[in-house]
This record gives sequence, structure tokens and C-alpha cells, in this order.
Amino acid sequence: RRRGYAEAVFCEGKSPAQLRAIATALRERHADGAPAGARTLFTRADEERAAAILDVLPDARHEPEARLLAWPPEPPEPTGGLVVVACAGTSDLPVAREAELTARYLGRRTELVVDVGIAGLHRILARVDTLRRAAAIVVVAGMDGALPGVVAGLVSAPVVAVPTSVGYGASFQGMAALLTMLNSCAPGVGVVNIDNGYGGGHLAAQIAAPRPE
Amino acid sequence: RRRGYAEAVFCEGKSPAQLRAIATALRERHADGAPAGARTLFTRADEERAAAILDVLPDARHEPEARLLAWPPEPPEPTGGLVVVACAGTSDLPVAREAELTARYLGRRTELVVDVGIAGLHRILARVDTLRRAAAIVVVAGMDGALPGVVAGLVSAPVVAVPTSVGYGASFQGMAALLTMLNSCAPGVGVVNIDNGYGGGHLAAQIAAPRPE
Amino acid sequence: RRRGYAEAVFCEGKSPAQLRAIATALRERHADGAPAGARTLFTRADEERAAAILDVLPDARHEPEARLLAWPPEPPEPTGGLVVVACAGTSDLPVAREAELTARYLGRRTELVVDVGIAGLHRILARVDTLRRAAAIVVVAGMDGALPGVVAGLVSAPVVAVPTSVGYGASFQGMAALLTMLNSCAPGVGVVNIDNGYGGGHLAAQIAAPRPE
Amino acid sequence: RRRGYAEAVFCEGKSPAQLRAIATALRERHADGAPAGARTLFTRADEERAAAILDVLPDARHEPEARLLAWPPEPPEPTGGLVVVACAGTSDLPVAREAELTARYLGRRTELVVDVGIAGLHRILARVDTLRRAAAIVVVAGMDGALPGVVAGLVSAPVVAVPTSVGYGASFQGMAALLTMLNSCAPGVGVVNIDNGYGGGHLAAQIAAPRPE
Amino acid sequence: RRRGYAEAVFCEGKSPAQLRAIATALRERHADGAPAGARTLFTRADEERAAAILDVLPDARHEPEARLLAWPPEPPEPTGGLVVVACAGTSDLPVAREAELTARYLGRRTELVVDVGIAGLHRILARVDTLRRAAAIVVVAGMDGALPGVVAGLVSAPVVAVPTSVGYGASFQGMAALLTMLNSCAPGVGVVNIDNGYGGGHLAAQIAAPRPE
Amino acid sequence: RRRGYAEAVFCEGKSPAQLRAIATALRERHADGAPAGARTLFTRADEERAAAILDVLPDARHEPEARLLAWPPEPPEPTGGLVVVACAGTSDLPVAREAELTARYLGRRTELVVDVGIAGLHRILARVDTLRRAAAIVVVAGMDGALPGVVAGLVSAPVVAVPTSVGYGASFQGMAALLTMLNSCAPGVGVVNIDNGYGGGHLAAQIAAPRPE
Amino acid sequence: RRRGYAEAVFCEGKSPAQLRAIATALRERHADGAPAGARTLFTRADEERAAAILDVLPDARHEPEARLLAWPPEPPEPTGGLVVVACAGTSDLPVAREAELTARYLGRRTELVVDVGIAGLHRILARVDTLRRAAAIVVVAGMDGALPGVVAGLVSAPVVAVPTSVGYGASFQGMAALLTMLNSCAPGVGVVNIDNGYGGGHLAAQIAAPRPE
Amino acid sequence: RRRGYAEAVFCEGKSPAQLRAIATALRERHADGAPAGARTLFTRADEERAAAILDVLPDARHEPEARLLAWPPEPPEPTGGLVVVACAGTSDLPVAREAELTARYLGRRTELVVDVGIAGLHRILARVDTLRRAAAIVVVAGMDGALPGVVAGLVSAPVVAVPTSVGYGASFQGMAALLTMLNSCAPGVGVVNIDNGYGGGHLAAQIAAPRPE
Ligand SMILES: Nc1ncnc2c1ncn2[C@@H]1O[C@H](COP(=O)(O)O)[C@@H](O)[C@H]1O
Ligand SMILES: Nc1ncnc2c1ncn2[C@@H]1O[C@H](COP(=O)(O)O)[C@@H](O)[C@H]1O
Ligand SMILES: Nc1ncnc2c1ncn2[C@@H]1O[C@H](COP(=O)(O)O)[C@@H](O)[C@H]1O
Ligand SMILES: Nc1ncnc2c1ncn2[C@@H]1O[C@H](COP(=O)(O)O)[C@@H](O)[C@H]1O
Ligand SMILES: [Mg+2]
Ligand SMILES: [Mg+2]
Ligand SMILES: [Mg+2]
Ligand SMILES: [Mg+2]
Ligand SMILES: [Mg+2]
Ligand SMILES: [Mg+2]
Ligand SMILES: [Mg+2]
Ligand SMILES: [Mg+2]
Repeated sequence: RRRGYAEAVFCEGKSPAQLRAIATALRERHADGAPAGARTLFTRADEERAAAILDVLPDARHEPEARLLAWPPEPPEPTGGLVVVACAGTSDLPVAREAELTARYLGRRTELVVDVGIAGLHRILARVDTLRRAAAIVVVAGMDGALPGVVAGLVSAPVVAVPTSVGYGASFQGMAALLTMLNSCAPGVGVVNIDNGYGGGHLAAQIAAPRPE
Repeated sequence: RRRGYAEAVFCEGKSPAQLRAIATALRERHADGAPAGARTLFTRADEERAAAILDVLPDARHEPEARLLAWPPEPPEPTGGLVVVACAGTSDLPVAREAELTARYLGRRTELVVDVGIAGLHRILARVDTLRRAAAIVVVAGMDGALPGVVAGLVSAPVVAVPTSVGYGASFQGMAALLTMLNSCAPGVGVVNIDNGYGGGHLAAQIAAPRPE
Repeated sequence: RRRGYAEAVFCEGKSPAQLRAIATALRERHADGAPAGARTLFTRADEERAAAILDVLPDARHEPEARLLAWPPEPPEPTGGLVVVACAGTSDLPVAREAELTARYLGRRTELVVDVGIAGLHRILARVDTLRRAAAIVVVAGMDGALPGVVAGLVSAPVVAVPTSVGYGASFQGMAALLTMLNSCAPGVGVVNIDNGYGGGHLAAQIAAPRPE
Repeated sequence: RRRGYAEAVFCEGKSPAQLRAIATALRERHADGAPAGARTLFTRADEERAAAILDVLPDARHEPEARLLAWPPEPPEPTGGLVVVACAGTSDLPVAREAELTARYLGRRTELVVDVGIAGLHRILARVDTLRRAAAIVVVAGMDGALPGVVAGLVSAPVVAVPTSVGYGASFQGMAALLTMLNSCAPGVGVVNIDNGYGGGHLAAQIAAPRPE
Repeated sequence: RRRGYAEAVFCEGKSPAQLRAIATALRERHADGAPAGARTLFTRADEERAAAILDVLPDARHEPEARLLAWPPEPPEPTGGLVVVACAGTSDLPVAREAELTARYLGRRTELVVDVGIAGLHRILARVDTLRRAAAIVVVAGMDGALPGVVAGLVSAPVVAVPTSVGYGASFQGMAALLTMLNSCAPGVGVVNIDNGYGGGHLAAQIAAPRPE
Repeated sequence: RRRGYAEAVFCEGKSPAQLRAIATALRERHADGAPAGARTLFTRADEERAAAILDVLPDARHEPEARLLAWPPEPPEPTGGLVVVACAGTSDLPVAREAELTARYLGRRTELVVDVGIAGLHRILARVDTLRRAAAIVVVAGMDGALPGVVAGLVSAPVVAVPTSVGYGASFQGMAALLTMLNSCAPGVGVVNIDNGYGGGHLAAQIAAPRPE
Repeated sequence: RRRGYAEAVFCEGKSPAQLRAIATALRERHADGAPAGARTLFTRADEERAAAILDVLPDARHEPEARLLAWPPEPPEPTGGLVVVACAGTSDLPVAREAELTARYLGRRTELVVDVGIAGLHRILARVDTLRRAAAIVVVAGMDGALPGVVAGLVSAPVVAVPTSVGYGASFQGMAALLTMLNSCAPGVGVVNIDNGYGGGHLAAQIAAPRPE
Repeated sequence: RRRGYAEAVFCEGKSPAQLRAIATALRERHADGAPAGARTLFTRADEERAAAILDVLPDARHEPEARLLAWPPEPPEPTGGLVVVACAGTSDLPVAREAELTARYLGRRTELVVDVGIAGLHRILARVDTLRRAAAIVVVAGMDGALPGVVAGLVSAPVVAVPTSVGYGASFQGMAALLTMLNSCAPGVGVVNIDNGYGGGHLAAQIAAPRPE
């Protein structure tokens, strides 16, 4: 397990049979009781893959919108600072939820802020208080990818920007949003891969982790 | 002359000698008096090229920041609606001024709004009244190129977005800003070529032109 | 509703269930009678998604070719100037019709000009009169994307260029047409995203809107 | 010498010293009199490189605008069909002239048609007679690169399209023009490399060559 | 009909119903007897689309490998020079055959040379005689796209290069082959769009056409 | 001043005269004594621009390798966690030092780790203790850009990855390194723009900032 | 057969019928007994294509994970040096196994090293002995593609790097891994096409071949 | 020193002062006599940088065409197999010579084959004997980059392909040649970075190294 954090299994490109085998190995490794702190996340699991995992680990928590499963199902008691995850609309929600749940299972308190696109600034201005309470903010955005830069201009906390492949044409599968975020006028924005909600939530959880001393 | 509008000479890639010849031909064509309505704009003229033109047409108006010369020097009496040109900072100013002067020489009233980047929303919100008085708005932006989308969300008038090559690294000489603008979440944004202040001002002047009837 | 214009729901990437929920919310908001001026457009709706919407809003107008639904079905009484939409052939027609209907539902008179490719100039020259009556022209083109530049050279009105993904090979899903349009030799061309008929029609409707005073 | 045609020396990236050596070798190979049919073209020679060549071959023909030198200076007696070279403006002229002179030195009659951009269709329509007399047409264009497709729609002869790096921003050093030409709606267009006037003129000369029988 | 040549209908992206309508219109236009010289080619027709066309025009010639149909079925009596079409292997054959049949239906004699890849030079050297008899050569190649340059070095006739999307990974759907061809070391190569067998055959037929006088 | 942090002036693309004006305005704003907490950084200042600034603010601290000036010259008393900046070699040092000094002037303790490329793993393994003491690590790398992923696999702290334009050929001015970092196998990596040492140091300083409570 | 090595048939893009014909021709060519040294590999064969081949050549060896078939089934007696194939995880295994089997059928001893990603350096350090016994090493990696550079820094033998399309978003179907490998800081890395396990194994087998003398 | 091979100092992007310091450190490390086997190569050294190095190490061997210096000047006694370096013309010679000298200083016998472009196959066929004597072949090529694939089809030895930035327009600074080489139809080609003569020579020297046993 990487430095004390939950282990992740990336399900895309693995067959249901392969996932069943991974889940079985996991269950057997922990046959003698609830593993203390040894949580596993299954990410990017579609319905078929989720079913294969639940077959073997029926008590796993399944979050279909985020395409994520966690086993054992309970997240750890939260420590450290608050992680806020923000996005503009329903299309970006699966990635935003993946980020939020990852941060939650890595041990942070989380809050989700939706429907805050830059085409209607009043909505994001109305949520500034929530954003300012965060120790780390994940901002998920497709199309023009402009939201993280606007958020970073409103707060002092680090912003983790997650571009999504939402869009069409000249969005080039998230490339446009990615470039926007890398060119953000406001400093304080770190970018992860397109659609990488897991990575965004993981980085935010690390940023908001309780300080060692 | 294109359908009643000023003629433009693109000076980049022309030698001072070639420009001197063009200016001479122009002067000779109008040797018998002030041409009524036959205005010529010289765009993208650096100091050396400007000097060559002024040599032949000493009464031309020279705007060094916009790298533009106009002859005859007086813009026409303004008609139609107001054209507002907005940009974030000093780096984008040459392109913004080129857009403004082009619109002015095509016969529109113009206003310039500077220092309204998206990293500080209060500044742009403070200028909403000006923006709402416009019949057409030119928004010039480099780096993340997010400003036109924010402006389009605040007004009903058409927004002409001009990406600039201001930036470095993953701005890819204006490509990042261009893609952001094409993917704008708010409708009502038409995009022109990178650094094309002339084209942006021209289109805005057409949009704000007096209606034929 | 954005500044007095119709609201739009982008159906691609939303499930039929999600669209049914959106349609239901809409119907309930306006349960007490015909909403005055509160029109909603459903764009990019394939057959399955259209059926889900019609299930809830059986009186919605469905235009399958344009993949568009409007509710309430009647467009507003037209005001402002004429919007002409032009394209070369049947492949570009879905996007062209989406642009035309959007402009119509935003309150403009519209006219459609088809079969005017640049490989046969006589056809476009035969339609110059129609083009010159427009307050705004939407030109839709794939492959070489050269049509908007040719049209802009023939008229004084602003041209909104919509590149389409029609083509193959080095058309790169509309990228070639997009670049052509951004590099148009004739000024007066504003470009929107690839296949963005909705955005093109919206911008044209704004350009041709009745002047405030 | 490649199959009976003139040999070419590409001067860009060769030092004046290297070119002087090449010219000397050439002069010595033909010390005993005028070489019958063994013509050499020096292409892409700037002033400094041209001077080095003229130093050794003072009777070479130097065409500075086309950055080309030919030795021996006289082109062959023309045979085969007419090659017409067309372009929109002065910026494309160096490449157009390189194409024309190459075709001329490979043994074709040539004609140059300038100032025929697509933003003013009447000019190109006025030259259709000339275009229709050609056995092969070279069309040189930068920026939107739309001219070859328009020409190909007007004639039956093959069109050789030469994209140029003229333009800025989203012209991407000729990439936009190149893609336009590859996606030409009219068939009958073959494309060569960006700024490759030599290659365009060579191909046209081959197309218009006298038939073997 | 474009300047005396066969008309082409591009079937990709048209529905079977649309094609049936086009075929019906065609049949009706020529109800009164065999059209003299008015040939139509249907290109890129998969099995379903071909069936729709044959439904209406049962006597059309169908070449499934080339995905092409011709009506009326007989090609014209050949005139002009020979068109040779060459490619390396079976993967490129559909495009090569599309080129050959197009040239054939535009009135040229044609010959097909297959299995001449650059990884085995002896095979292409064994076919030099055939290549040298051609008035125009179409070379079709995917992957490294090196074949047209090798052929152009062996002959005096113009070479029309058709890149194909055959390959994977860094072939980028034909982009790699396209760039190779544009950068061909040997002059005399004109390039058309990726997979554009129709365009390649059309251009070759124009090059090899009987000279007007 | 952005939320309590130092203000930055990006000097690239500003003339010495413009910088002299900015420096003068700054000096005048604080004429009455040392500004408490109001530090300004001048970034990307070459020798000529640095001289212009030092002309007006002779007591500014100038760090030529990092192309940075700070005024007033003393950094604040450090608070929060340690920021470690790591890079492979001397070519990346200017960007690494820009990151380190930015973090230092934003109030963090900093340490620099150089000569730790991935081609010699023992060197980086020898520095793991230092890396593990950090609250935030900035990893600067050009060419293959693989170092941040290796570091992230060794520590629990967040890693800010700064790609540089160091390299040639297929490094595409830092694009290759940027992509590597975005695709890092180890989670916990946030990426900023190419050569953006300022942004990397700023984000790390925010991550390592003292917690509000 | 290419210079004494096994012949390969690339099955992707060939129909089962075409493969059946190729297999039949092969069987007939060798009807009179086991071909000495004339081995054929069928690469990139999915289940349907493999079945077609096994239909005709029932004794062929089928390796489904590597999507490879060999006939006759026995590899040659190994000669030359050892080829080691290394990769990080299960996603890259099909390509790694294709490389290993190709090298094996070309006559080399092979060893497979899996689960050695750069995010956990201890695993690769634990396998250094195996890597140092190799005469040639194939390293297969997707996503960040950093593994070959790390391996090359640990050994003296040549490293053949095979990028894979494993990843998502900014991995751009293997492009990111490819660029990383081309920019490897450690010398001694030769790169082949994305997902080209066959080519990687072939090159490694040539490198490790017995020396002629 | 990397596993027994010469150390290399990449001079591009290092100042003459930095190089003088590196050379001084080197000289001091070996003050007590000729270092046995500890050779250093300075690569990509222009005239100014070479002078700085020669200032400190006057007995270094300087090869200006290859932009390379070696110290101590004598290459080791050659062992292992022959390395042949091939290229088409004078433009690629600097990179080819850099490859050859690198292989020579790493301890191999080398031979240079120039003027073997694919546009004249007879020249390369005339050199097949030389090519077949090699244990490893480096093929250097710009523009279409087709030469390595042709060579690989003629020999059994591994081919190291070095793309160069020689070319213009759609050669995209060596990108076109790079892609051609990655898509080579003949197996047995490993590719290194654009213009990376050092890397190509290094890899070839490793391939041709004496076998450990
Ligand atoms: N959704 C995700 N996106 C990106 N990386 C992931 C994701 N889920 C897991 N990973 C990473 O992939 C690794 C597991 O890959 P695998 O061994 O193929 O299941 C984990 O250690 C994570 O670092
Ligand atoms: N202007 C040009 N553009 C493209 N290719 C050229 C040009 N001039 C010469 N060439 C080609 O380059 C070859 C000569 O190259 P070189 O041996 O380097 O002088 C000639 O045989 C031509 O095929
Ligand atoms: N070296 C740098 N790299 C990236 N962004 C910078 C850099 N220096 C300053 N900035 C940003 O650019 C802004 C100042 O830009 P300007 O007003 O043009 O001087 C600052 O607020 C920073 O956010
Ligand atoms: N998996 C593979 N990847 C890349 N190239 C391959 C592969 N398999 C076969 N080849 C090459 O493709 C050639 C056969 O292609 P084909 O004639 O289309 O079957 C062989 O000679 C190999 O050089
Ligand atoms: Mg902030
Ligand atoms: Mg608006
Ligand atoms: Mg068109
Ligand atoms: Mg116009
Ligand atoms: Mg034509
Ligand atoms: Mg030829
Ligand atoms: Mg090594
Ligand atoms: Mg070989």
C-alpha cells in the first residue's frame, strides 16, 4: 500500500474475470477479519465490472455514478483539512464524484459544490464561503476549462484542476480544457490528467493531510 | 475598397521599399484632393515600416502601440452602435488597440476597457455597465483565454474573441487561448485568428453598423 | 434564462432518464399555462433521447434532421433582421438546420440556402441577392471550409462560420475547416466550434437582434 | 541529371563556401564548352549565397525575387503544353516565381497570373480564359489556402497546389493552407510541400511535358 | 457533370434512403435511353448502401473491393495515356482499386501493380518497365508511405501519391504516410487526401488525358 | 496583492522602459518607509531588464541565475512546512532556482536537491531522507520528464511537477516532459506550465503554508 | 523469408476468409513434410481470426494473450544471447508477450519480467541481476513510458523500448509514452512503434543473434 | 562513467564559462597522468564553445563538422563488430559524423557511407556489400526519412534510425522523418530522437559490442 493510503485498482481494460481474481486474492489476504486501514478502491468500473467485484466482495460499497467501489465499505474517520470538489454541471459529475470519494476514502472530510460555471458568475460568488473553508479544492471542468482559474483567483488554498473530456469538436477530448488550466492566469493551480478524478482527489487528500508533527 | 469600408495593407512580410511604393500609388490616386470615404489602414507596421510610409504620406496618423497608420488621418464621423474593446493587461494592449482603432476608422464609436482579468473578478464586474452599453464587444486575451466566455455570460451583445500569442510553454503561441474561446460555455462568442486585432475590430464594426433600413 | 433568449439543453451525454427528469421539471414549472417567452430548446437529441422528451412534453416540436426539439412548439414572432444560413450540400444540412432553427426560436426571420459549394461558383453567385438581404449570415462547411471566406467577400454583413466534421483523412474531424475559417482572407468572419450549429445560430440571432433604442 | 531534367541544388543550409565548391565542380565539368541540355538550378539562394555562386559562375542568370540562379543562363526552347502559375498577392510571389522559373527551365512555356484571391471572385473569373489554355496550373496560396480548389472547379487541367507559410497565428506556418488543399472539394488537385515552389513547378512541367509518342 | 468527366456520389455519411433517392432521380433523368457520356460513380459504398443503389439501378456495375458502383456499367472507350496504379499489399488494395476504376471510368487505360513494397526492392525494380510506360502513376501506400518517392526516382512521369490509413500507433491514421509523401526527396510527386483513391485516380486521369490540340 | 502573497511582475515581453515605470510606481507607493509584507517579485528578467529595475530600486535583491529580483530584498521570516525543490542537472537549474526563490519569498523554508536524474537511481535514493522531510516537493525536469513520477513513488507529500523546455527534437519544447508528468503512474503529482518555476514555487508555498487554525 | 527469420502475417485488417486463404497456401507450399526453418507467425489475431487459421492449420501453436499463432508450432533451438522482456503490469502484458514469443520464434532464449513499474523502484532494483544477464532487453510501457530509461540506466545491453496505448486522456493513445522514450536521458534506447510487440521482439532477436564469425 | 563507456557532456545550452569549468574539473581529476579508459566526449559544441574547451584541454581532438570534442584525443583500440553509418547527403553529414565518432570513441570500428538517397536506388544497391559486413548500422535521414526502412530490407543486422531536422514545411523539424521511421515496413529498425547522432552511435556501439562470454 502506497505510503499509508488506500490501494487502487484501475478497472478499465481489465476483464471481469481478472477483476474477480483480484477481488478474491484481496478477500483471502484479509480472511481473518476486517483489515485495519487496508482499504482498496476499484476505479472506473462499469456495471459489468462492478457486478464481478460485488460477486466476490458483496459488502463492498458501490457508487455507480462515480464508477467506484470501496472495500471494506466504510471510509476511515476523517482527519486533516476539508477538501471541496467543485464543478459546473451534470456532465462533469462522474469525475467530480470520483474525486470526492477518493479524498473521502483517503481520510478527508469532503464537500461537493455543483452548478458553478463561469457563464454565470453569481453562482460561484455565492459559494465563496464554502470554497474559503477548504484546505484543498478540486475543480473539475470540461469544454473551456476556465473554472479552476476563476476559483484560484478567489481563494488562498491550492487548487487541483481536473480537465474532463466533456465537450466536442475543438475540445479535442479534453485537450482544450487541459491547456486552459496549464495557462491559468492565477497562480496556485496544479493540473492532473484528463478525466483523472481519482488522481485529483488523491492529490487534494495529500495536500489536506494532517501535518506530521 | 471592400463594400464601403477602409482598405487595409498588411505590412508584416512586406519590405519598406514595397510599402513606399504602395503609399506612393495611393497618394497619386488621390492627388486631386482629400478622398471622400477612401481611407487606408496600414496594419502591423513596425518602426522601420512606419517610417517608410510616413516618408511618403507625412500626414498619416501613426499609432505606434497598435502598429497602425491611417491615411487620410481623420476617422469618419461615427455612426451605428458602440464598440467596446476589453482586455486583461498591458501585454494584450497592442492587439486591443489595433482592434479599437480599426473599429474607429470603420466608423464606430469605441471605448477601451483594460485590466479586467478573470483572476480578479471584481474588476470586470465593476465594468458591466460599460459592457452592457455596447452593440458589439471585442475581448482580447492570451494565456488561458477565458475572458471572452466570462464577458459573454454578462451581456446580450455579440462578443468577438481575439486570442493572442501572449504566454509561454503550453500556451503554444495562442493555440490554448484559441481553443478556450472556441469551447466557450456561454453562447454568443465568435472567434478570429490569433493576434488578429484588425479582424476583430472589423467584425465588431460590421456587427455594430447602422442598419440599412 | 440567459438575457431574454431561449434556454438550451444539450442532450448528448445525458441519459434518456436524465432528460425525462429535466423535461418534467420544465413542465411543472409552467403547469399553470403557456409560458410567455420562456422557450426551451433540446439540442443534439438522437431518436431515443427525442422519444424520452416527447414522452413528457408530447406537444414539443421535433425536428429530427436538426436533432432539435422546442417547447413550447411555437417560435416567437420574428423581430430584427434576416438571418440567412448557407451550406454546400446534404452532409452539412443537419448542422445548418440546427443553426437556422436556433435563430428562428430566438426570434429572427430565417432563410436557408443550400447547394452552394465553392467548386461551382455560379451557384453561389446566383444567390448573392439573398445573401445581401441578410443582417447576419451563418455559413456551414466541412472539408476545405472555404465557403465562409468566399461569402464574406460578397457581402457587408457579418459572417458566422461553422466548421463541420464532414470529411475524412486530413480533414481531421473538422480541424481543417476550422483552420481555413480562422485564416479567411476576407475580414468579417467570426468562427464557432466544430459542428456547433446551435452556437452559430445563437450568435447570428444576437447580431441580427433589434437594436435596443 | 534526373531523367533529362535540370539538376537542382538546394542552397538553404549550405554554406557559401560549400556552394562555391559545387559551382566550381560544375564549371570544371563543363570547361570545354556550353553543356547541351545540362542545366543546373540553384534554389533558395539568399543574397549572400547568390553572390558566392555568381563569383564562380558570373554568367549565371540570377532571379532574386525567386531566390533562384540558373546556369547556363538560357532556358531551353519550350516544348509541350503551357504552364500557368497563379497566386493571390505579393506575399506569395517569391514561391510563385520559383515555380514559374522552374517550369520554364525544365522546358515549358509559362504565364503568371497574380492578384486573384478568393475574397474578390471577379478577378479570378476575369482570368478564366488564361487558366483554360493551360496544360497544367500551379496555384500558390497561403493563409486559408482556398484558391486551388476554386481554380480546380473552373478548369479541366490538373492543378498543382503549393501551400505557403504566408500568414500568422492559426495558419501554423502553412499547415492550415496545406490541409485546405488536401481537403479540396473539387477533384483534380495534387499538393506539394509548404513553400515548395520548385517542386510545384517541376511537377507541372512533367504534367505538361510533350507526350513521348 | 464536371467538365466532361463522370459525376461522383460520395456514399459515406449518406443513408441508404438518401442514396435510393439520388439513384432514382438519376434513372429518371435518363429514362429515355442510355445517356451518352453521362456516367455516375458511387464511391465509398458499403454493402448496405450498395444494395440500396442496386435496388434502383440493377444494371449498375458493382466493385465491392473498391466499394464503388458505376452506372451505366460500361466504362468509356479509353483515350489518352496509360494510368498505372501501384501499391505494396492487400491492405492498400481497396484504395488502389478505387483509384484504378476511377481512372478507367474517366476514360483511361489502366494497369494495376501490387506487392511492390520498399522492404523488398527487387519486386519494384522488376516492374520498372511497366511503370515507365505510364503517362501518370498513382502510388498508394500506408504506414511509412515511402513507396511514391522510390517510384518517382525511377520514372519521368508525374506520380500521384495517395496515403492510406493502413497502419497503427504512430501512423496516426495515415498522417505519417501523408507527411512522408509531402517530403519526398524526389520531385514529381503530387499528394491527395488520406484514403482518397477516387481523387488520386481522377487526377491521374486528368494528367493522362488526350491533349486538346 | 493576491491574498497575502507577494505580487509578481512578469518581465518577459515588457520593455525596460515599461519596467522602469512599474518600479518607479512601486517605489513611490512605499516612499514613506519599508512596506510591511508588501513584497514584489520581478520574474523572467534578463540582464537588460534587471538593470532597468535596479536603476530605480538599487536595493532590490537580484538573482541572475533565476532571472528574478525581489524588493524589498529580504524574504519574510519562514513559516509553515519545508519546500524541497529537486532537479536533474544544470540545464534545469534556472527554473528550479526560480521555484525555490518564489517559495522562499512567499514565506517558506526551502532546500534545493540537484543532480538526481533517473538514469542514475542511486543518487535520488541517497536523498530520500531530505525528500521525506518536505511538506511539498517541486520537481523540475525536461527531456523525458520522468523524475516527478519517481519522486512521487518515494514520498507521501504532494509533488508539484514543472516541465522544462530543456531538450531538443521530439522533446517539442517541453511538451514531451509535460505529457509524461500528466501520465505519471504514481498519484500525487500536480503539473504546472512548461518552464513555470514561479508557478511551481507558488503552488508549493501554498501547499506548505501554515494551517489557518 | 526475410534473411533467415520467420515470416509474419499481420492479421488486423485481414478478413477470416483472407487468412484462411493465406494459411491454405502456406500448408500447400509445405505439403511434403515439416519445413526446415520456414516458420510463420500470425500476429494480432483476435479470437475469430485465430479460429480461421486453426481451422486450416490445426497444429499451429496459439497464444491468445499475445494474439499470436505460430506454425509449425515448435520454436527453433535457441542460439545467441538472452532476450529479457520487462513491463510494469497486466495491461502491458499482451504486447510484452508478443515481443517475447517473437524473439523466441526467431531463435532466442527469453525471460519475462513483470510488475516492475517506476512508482515502486525496489521491484525493479530486485531484478537487476536478470536484466544484466540479457544481450538485449525489450521494455514495454504505457502511460508515462518512463521504464525503459530507468532500465537503460542500470544495464550495458541495448534496450528496445515499446510504447503501448495503455492509458487515457493525455496519454494520447501511446503518444506520451513514445515521446518519453525518444527523450530518454540514458543513452542506449531504440524505440519502435506504439504497441509493436512484434517489432520490438524482432529487433531484440537481431541484436542478440549469434555473431556471424 | 556509465557502465564502462565514455562520458558525454552536452554543450548546447551551457555557457562557455560553464564548459570551461567542466573541462577544468576534468583535467584536475586526471592531473596525474593519462586516464586509462576514462574518455569524455563534448557534443553539440559550436565554435565558441569548442574554443572554450580547447582553452583548457588544448590536446583534445576537435571535429568541427560533427561539433564534437574528445579528451583524451585518442579513441580506444577497436573491439567487437563493425558499425556502418549511412546517410543521403551533405545536409545530414554533421549528424552522421557525430554518430560515427561516438561509436568510434566507444570502441568500435566504423565506416561511413554517404550519398545513398532513396531517389537513386542504384547508389544504395552498390553499397550493399559494405552494409552486410556491419554488426550494426546507423541510418541518418531527414525530409521523408525513408532510407532506414530501405536499408533494413537489405540486411540482417539491426538498424538504428536517426531522423534529422533537415527539411522544411511539412517536415516539421524532423517529425515527418521520425514518424516514417517508426512506421517502417521492414522490421529491425530502432529509432532515436531527432538529430540525436550521439544516441544513435552509442546504441550502435552497444549492439556491436564484444559479447561478454
Ligand atoms: N481512476 C484512475 N485514474 C488514474 N490512475 C488510477 C486510477 N485508478 C488507479 N490508478 C492508478 O493505477 C494504479 C493501479 O493500476 P493497476 O495495477 O493497473 O490496477 C494505482 O496504484 C493508481 O496509482
Ligand atoms: N527549392 C527546393 N525545394 C525542394 N526540394 C528541392 C529544392 N531545390 C532542390 N530540391 C531537391 O533537392 C535535391 C538537391 O538537394 P541537394 O543535393 O541537397 O542540393 C534536388 O535533386 C531536388 O530534388
Ligand atoms: N515567471 C512567471 N511565470 C508565470 N506566471 C507569472 C510569472 N511571473 C508572474 N506571473 C504571473 O503573471 C502575473 C503578472 O503579470 P503582469 O501583470 O503581466 O506582470 C502575476 O500576477 C503572476 O500571476
Ligand atoms: N504485429 C506486427 N506489428 C508490426 N508489424 C508487423 C506485425 N506483424 C507483422 N508485421 C510486419 O508486417 C509484414 C506483413 O504484413 P502483411 O503482408 O500485411 O501480412 C511482415 O513482414 C512484418 O514485417
Ligand atoms: Mg488562489
Ligand atoms: Mg452573452
Ligand atoms: Mg466547402
Ligand atoms: Mg464581408
Ligand atoms: Mg478541375
Ligand atoms: Mg520522377
Ligand atoms: Mg544502458
Ligand atoms: Mg533488416
